[in-house]
Amino acid sequence: MWSDGGRGHYTADVIELLRQVSTATVWTQLYRRGFCNQYLHEVRPLRPDTRVVGRARTLRYLPARKDLLAELERDPQRNPQRVVIESIEPGDVLVIEARGETGAGVLGDILAARVMARGGVGIVTDGAFRDTPGIVALGLAAYARGQHAGLSQSLHVPIAYDVPIACAGTTVLPGDMIVGDGEGVVVVPRHLVEEVAVAAAEQEVLEAFLLQRVRDGASLWGTYPPDEATRREFGEWRSQRERA
Amino acid sequence: MWSDGGRGHYTADVIELLRQVSTATVWTQLYRRGFCNQYLHEVRPLRPDTRVVGRARTLRYLPARKDLLAELERDPQRNPQRVVIESIEPGDVLVIEARGETGAGVLGDILAARVMARGGVGIVTDGAFRDTPGIVALGLAAYARGQHAGLSQSLHVPIAYDVPIACAGTTVLPGDMIVGDGEGVVVVPRHLVEEVAVAAAEQEVLEAFLLQRVRDGASLWGTYPPDEATRREFGEWRSQRERA
Amino acid sequence: MWSDGGRGHYTADVIELLRQVSTATVWTQLYRRGFCNQYLHEVRPLRPDTRVVGRARTLRYLPARKDLLAELERDPQRNPQRVVIESIEPGDVLVIEARGETGAGVLGDILAARVMARGGVGIVTDGAFRDTPGIVALGLAAYARGQHAGLSQSLHVPIAYDVPIACAGTTVLPGDMIVGDGEGVVVVPRHLVEEVAVAAAEQEVLEAFLLQRVRDGASLWGTYPPDEATRREFGEWRSQRERA
Amino acid sequence: MWSDGGRGHYTADVIELLRQVSTATVWTQLYRRGFCNQYLHEVRPLRPDTRVVGRARTLRYLPARKDLLAELERDPQRNPQRVVIESIEPGDVLVIEARGETGAGVLGDILAARVMARGGVGIVTDGAFRDTPGIVALGLAAYARGQHAGLSQSLHVPIAYDVPIACAGTTVLPGDMIVGDGEGVVVVPRHLVEEVAVAAAEQEVLEAFLLQRVRDGASLWGTYPPDEATRREFGEWRSQRERA
Amino acid sequence: MWSDGGRGHYTADVIELLRQVSTATVWTQLYRRGFCNQYLHEVRPLRPDTRVVGRARTLRYLPARKDLLAELERDPQRNPQRVVIESIEPGDVLVIEARGETGAGVLGDILAARVMARGGVGIVTDGAFRDTPGIVALGLAAYARGQHAGLSQSLHVPIAYDVPIACAGTTVLPGDMIVGDGEGVVVVPRHLVEEVAVAAAEQEVLEAFLLQRVRDGASLWGTYPPDEATRREFGEWRSQRERA
Amino acid sequence: MWSDGGRGHYTADVIELLRQVSTATVWTQLYRRGFCNQYLHEVRPLRPDTRVVGRARTLRYLPARKDLLAELERDPQRNPQRVVIESIEPGDVLVIEARGETGAGVLGDILAARVMARGGVGIVTDGAFRDTPGIVALGLAAYARGQHAGLSQSLHVPIAYDVPIACAGTTVLPGDMIVGDGEGVVVVPRHLVEEVAVAAAEQEVLEAFLLQRVRDGASLWGTYPPDEATRREFGEWRSQRERA
Repeated sequence: MWSDGGRGHYTADVIELLRQVSTATVWTQLYRRGFCNQYLHEVRPLRPDTRVVGRARTLRYLPARKDLLAELERDPQRNPQRVVIESIEPGDVLVIEARGETGAGVLGDILAARVMARGGVGIVTDGAFRDTPGIVALGLAAYARGQHAGLSQSLHVPIAYDVPIACAGTTVLPGDMIVGDGEGVVVVPRHLVEEVAVAAAEQEVLEAFLLQRVRDGASLWGTYPPDEATRREFGEWRSQRERA
Repeated sequence: MWSDGGRGHYTADVIELLRQVSTATVWTQLYRRGFCNQYLHEVRPLRPDTRVVGRARTLRYLPARKDLLAELERDPQRNPQRVVIESIEPGDVLVIEARGETGAGVLGDILAARVMARGGVGIVTDGAFRDTPGIVALGLAAYARGQHAGLSQSLHVPIAYDVPIACAGTTVLPGDMIVGDGEGVVVVPRHLVEEVAVAAAEQEVLEAFLLQRVRDGASLWGTYPPDEATRREFGEWRSQRERA
Repeated sequence: MWSDGGRGHYTADVIELLRQVSTATVWTQLYRRGFCNQYLHEVRPLRPDTRVVGRARTLRYLPARKDLLAELERDPQRNPQRVVIESIEPGDVLVIEARGETGAGVLGDILAARVMARGGVGIVTDGAFRDTPGIVALGLAAYARGQHAGLSQSLHVPIAYDVPIACAGTTVLPGDMIVGDGEGVVVVPRHLVEEVAVAAAEQEVLEAFLLQRVRDGASLWGTYPPDEATRREFGEWRSQRERA
Repeated sequence: MWSDGGRGHYTADVIELLRQVSTATVWTQLYRRGFCNQYLHEVRPLRPDTRVVGRARTLRYLPARKDLLAELERDPQRNPQRVVIESIEPGDVLVIEARGETGAGVLGDILAARVMARGGVGIVTDGAFRDTPGIVALGLAAYARGQHAGLSQSLHVPIAYDVPIACAGTTVLPGDMIVGDGEGVVVVPRHLVEEVAVAAAEQEVLEAFLLQRVRDGASLWGTYPPDEATRREFGEWRSQRERA
Repeated sequence: MWSDGGRGHYTADVIELLRQVSTATVWTQLYRRGFCNQYLHEVRPLRPDTRVVGRARTLRYLPARKDLLAELERDPQRNPQRVVIESIEPGDVLVIEARGETGAGVLGDILAARVMARGGVGIVTDGAFRDTPGIVALGLAAYARGQHAGLSQSLHVPIAYDVPIACAGTTVLPGDMIVGDGEGVVVVPRHLVEEVAVAAAEQEVLEAFLLQRVRDGASLWGTYPPDEATRREFGEWRSQRERA
Repeated sequence: MWSDGGRGHYTADVIELLRQVSTATVWTQLYRRGFCNQYLHEVRPLRPDTRVVGRARTLRYLPARKDLLAELERDPQRNPQRVVIESIEPGDVLVIEARGETGAGVLGDILAARVMARGGVGIVTDGAFRDTPGIVALGLAAYARGQHAGLSQSLHVPIAYDVPIACAGTTVLPGDMIVGDGEGVVVVPRHLVEEVAVAAAEQEVLEAFLLQRVRDGASLWGTYPPDEATRREFGEWRSQRERA
């Protein structure tokens, strides 16, 4: 199954729902379904106000090796890095496995600009970006573990794309849904996207209500987690809000 | 002594003095008294302009374990995390030992809001926050080693509160004074708070004077550390300033 | 050769060229000449908009040791930290080897202010700064691996200056050129400074052109790396720009 | 519950069963019961042929702090390190939380000898031993993360004993069962000890049978995991062995 | 090329040559040919007297994920871990990518025994073994970064075999030659095996001669590296030895 | 003072005293004199039964850089690594600063053999050895943080010798005394060698007595630390032993 290279297709509604929820909420819904390891550890947005929802396109790097690099140079059109970027479709997020190594960039501003020009909505890696100030300037959603001025080939060689990868301790399959905010990135397995989107949006409304209650002075007891009475009040508040 | 759960009580004057000094200055005063390890290593403010002074309330997490988590679920009112938050008093800073683990949040925006609603002035941990953008939005002084979308129970179980803890390589006793600025956090042992506050405020005035001299072109020789002449000039400058 | 304490002298033109290029571009030019390890790993600017170009003045710290610290206290005028700061010349960047240790500051705002007052244009270390908010306020270009409220002598003892050092995994010789931007810092060996400056400036123009093409929708194929046709168009674009 | 300081009591039979099984087998039985985190990460025996089964007695260290160390010096009889050692009973294993810090020993050969003289059967820590060659010579089961010639008080201060602790990423309650072999250490929660001991001993017999089959040339298919036929043969082999 | 799953075939002579050389010597020969990164960092033999030469068979693990594990359970015959082991041929070395994670075993003694029964000559991983004492007892050449009692599925899911992998910072292609000794493991790219084997054997003879000279009191000058005179003496020594 | 390149001279008596004490005991004597950081963190003997006492000769490596390596190749007789080895005198211990980097060897068996042939008694580094099995075979006292098949020039360039260095977090001056046992290595500043040797030998006798008492069943109370009565008995025991 995970080797078919297939890509998920998601409705605009689902994407819209996920745009309104935090990664913390999505994480919770995944955790309740037995997916405990869906957050990319220590991967951070270049800009704290970043928000991104998109389909994962994967790219795998291995440690640089002379013969493999030579082969790519002989035949650049088979370079998995270039091929996957030139196949980015609108709504895609490029996710790059860099083995957590931040001793060189995985790509710089020109490649990032190409991802963006093709309609890509983000780039995520457990490695580093180079030309980081340039990528910040582009305004593309971009998440990494570090920044480094070095070219990728000094440390990495791209080996495959649209294959299952490990990124920051999390498995990412092509077609999984990537959800990112100012906290970081969570990965939603393809078959759970719709279900999680709906449940997360639901949870988010409840938590907005609870947060307001707590800010207004409510004790945690009875409020968080909500007891019967609080849930009833939530129902009323919600009906009112929806009528409004 | 350190198991009595007692809590320090500090005058508004002392708190005011500490509000005007940097953590670097407080650190120096503690170091001179033989306390060499009072800075929380690699714990950073969510917002660089943060300043906080408050009494430490402690909470200890252990690695998550099924039987301990089940017990808390059966009897939430004995959950040390909830109990300590519901006992926060105005001026308290909640300090959470998370063993330096950033693979889950120690708490999120709703619990942080409750700390704030009860008059708490800050939260400090050597773990991670979740809902980090939400906590930033609250405006509460918040210091951590990381950020992670995961629920605390996926990694931690709260085991005790108002006990001595280790946080980021530093011992924190309940009732110690927490002083934080844009650099980080220092911990002032209870019996030294007043003495250190006075001495730090004194040092801060001297250093403001010396910094100005250096910016005006003074050589380090004779200025930093100050010799007799510089100390005399400082005395004059200070008298003038106080008369003004 | 590297023990002569000699210091490079660079023309204003060369410095001006290097001011206009990114560290990523400088890195590439060094890499092409067989210098693969010239970026300071995980050293970051205190302010992301930092830019600095200057001659390296080096300072080496060893682990603190009672007898060596006592000696410095007896004879402060032989303290290498103070001596090197008091010998800073306009355009110098002070580079401090701290063995990657961030458990104390390497210096604070007063010493940083002195570097600045003497015409120094930056401070770089693989350790931590103390008084970090104060250093940010000074506006001096400053790069480090961390921040810590502690005095340097709690962890370090200065042992020598204007000697070859290791900083963040990179060798720095006195007189090398330091180039920093929002990404980080690269070190240009003295004998390559002019050659690299010219080539980097050249490369930067080409990349600006290519980036614009890609943002305008050009495919990577033929553009990046540029083929004959693209290079020709670049030539025309450039002539036009220069005529303008 | 976990604050009662109570201590488990185990029959000689249970201890004998656990002596015959590997930590890998015990880990598997705990994992099946939802306890996923019972192995002490990167804690190794001083001697690879070590085997130990015993009741956990816990000791907690915090980062050294001048006032706490002074207090212990004034009243050594309240030093938790000394008190817990002087209360070791036959069959106990002393487990010391050192926060993973290996920059000083947690104890040396004289204290280890005292644990042994009182009938203690092992010492486990996520810190370091000092006098390691002396401890090896004693022959006591001893597990640690490192070795360091330094006295504990240069880094640690003992703060409590017979309390829940974290050791190498695992929660240990007083009275839990410690099982160690050449691989490392697993912690069995008190209420599971008997059940796990029986199941582990059972599993060990099956795996000995399977290992022999595989060494004799059996394919994994049908053997590991065992299908019906293999299980039947195991039954027969076992009956024969028991009759013998 | 590297996705063809092809496997190298090596003559007994080449294997015999490689058996007689150290990994340090093989490393040198690879380095001279521009392959600078062929040693598996921090991967150690379970037994210091280990020596192994064999063809790499690769296995890739990703972080455990519920849906992928469920799929393997439904259809164990498609489990890449089991399939690759059941396809081991005499002279193969199984190399397992575990992302450097040592928080669970990659396999235990039963699977190791199966590798051995099929003629496999070694197992190498950048993760941990479980049942380590059992694997030591088998006597199979085994290299890892750690040891852990936990089952692989608590941390890993096997995703593919006979694909290019990263192991301990080094790229390994199926069919590469693995050479291990008491120091560790080097990877020889397929197309260089014969050439490197011959050159390494040659170098080893020279170094044996030089080592003897140095032990007999020769100065490094002229001996290491050898000058004309030393090379001449080596020629004579060698002729004599070959005549003997 | 520390740049004079002077070398300590020690009597055979002092060396003999230090041969009989453990590094733990030496550490204690240094700690009492305010030297808190004299143990080389995580540096281990290749063979656990190693014992070494000798005068430090220092060698400093920097990160490899093309121009510096080229210079050494042009003029090998100025290579600090070779020069220091060819100046080793009987009783010297070569201590190599490798910045804690274990990604290449600092030297291999031929250079180690030369150190030994010149009367050197040990080699210590915070990097790795290569040809580790060969160095073990030589029988020279050898301490390191790791082992790696790679040549030093792939990571390091020797830059100076007989200068102050940092090794594994500890400052080492040329002429300091190196004391190593199965636990690791401590560094004794030159001016303290005699005083520490005498005090350590004294302490060792007392601790042997105390250890025996504890093994015979004595409680810690009154024994460790020893009270008046225990000290008196020690005095008698000692007199008897000396008379014997």
